[in-house]
Amino acid sequence: MGAASEDISIRKSDLTRIRVMDSAAKVLRLRGYAGARLSEIADNAGLKPANIYYYFESRDALIEQVMEVGVQRGFEAVREAVEALGSEASPLDRLKSAIMAHLQSNLAQDDYASATIRCLGQVPDDMRERQLALERGFGHYWRMLIAECQADGSVRSELHASVVRMLLLGMLNWAVEWYEKGELSPEQVADQAVSLFVDGCRPRD
Amino acid sequence: MGAASEDISIRKSDLTRIRVMDSAAKVLRLRGYAGARLSEIADNAGLKPANIYYYFESRDALIEQVMEVGVQRGFEAVREAVEALGSEASPLDRLKSAIMAHLQSNLAQDDYASATIRCLGQVPDDMRERQLALERGFGHYWRMLIAECQADGSVRSELHASVVRMLLLGMLNWAVEWYEKGELSPEQVADQAVSLFVDGCRPRD
Repeated sequence: MGAASEDISIRKSDLTRIRVMDSAAKVLRLRGYAGARLSEIADNAGLKPANIYYYFESRDALIEQVMEVGVQRGFEAVREAVEALGSEASPLDRLKSAIMAHLQSNLAQDDYASATIRCLGQVPDDMRERQLALERGFGHYWRMLIAECQADGSVRSELHASVVRMLLLGMLNWAVEWYEKGELSPEQVADQAVSLFVDGCRPRD
Repeated sequence: MGAASEDISIRKSDLTRIRVMDSAAKVLRLRGYAGARLSEIADNAGLKPANIYYYFESRDALIEQVMEVGVQRGFEAVREAVEALGSEASPLDRLKSAIMAHLQSNLAQDDYASATIRCLGQVPDDMRERQLALERGFGHYWRMLIAECQADGSVRSELHASVVRMLLLGMLNWAVEWYEKGELSPEQVADQAVSLFVDGCRPRD
């Protein structure tokens, strides 16, 4: 066995790892932390349940890695949308883009983001603590977006920035619980959220 | 044993039932569906774990009853607040009162309401279905409050009533996940939610 075949076997095992995580994200999104069974996760990934332990130390270790990716991807989707606007964009346009991207990524594209939101209130305390620490960076980013809007007057200053931020994230995150494909697309729901939130924040005449 | 002593024993067992449910609500609020242990629930209620099965058929049956009470109490708190305004109140004042009452009941007063919100996304599918059926009545009530505001123009008509309703409930429900006693009281958080939502909904000039 030379270096080349070792490389291939490493890559194969990485691919299986990703397949298991993709499957876990899908099952967690549907069933939540308590309801997600390793047997269903393994089945969807084309593995025997026991073989999952070759890739992940425990059920919780697998779930925690899915949630880490969920936070990272959600954060990336938002940051990319905001940065795509370029440096000339107004703070309010940046905030609008962030809301659109976050809600669309929650509702449409990404099992990881939905799985993460769904599970956050359900996992054991120590996992939850580590997860919240990870999310702090994402939280800072939202805080910055809102602070910029308060600085230029597009969000009125008497609103309490961190309460408003958490109310907004609640609006966006809870949508995972009620949204079903049908009458309205994720984009249309996101439009309503932007309309509601931005008008809710603007200065009174 | 006459009828009188039978009555007393029925009442005693009802009181223990309520004590178990109160304890379960507290533990579920803190730990969610997956994390709530019967041993902790029993302990707080001053019972041995096995004795819980004298009052409830199963762990899930106990949790389901807590969640039923949670919906009923949340609904009652909102309806009472709205009805206390009297029949002359404007639709917008009725909606404001409902938001205040719902958020305050979620954050401050009631383990049952918080436990219910916390657990809703976590319980097995069949429990979740029954729970959502129960909540439909509460949902209709919010729909009516918003429809009245759209009818008199205090909520702009281009907002999609049911999306706006679910975004609002998300804002109010998710607060259970992040609110900690400290800087702001539940009432102050509720004020911010009212301010944000009502301004977000009003007609544009």
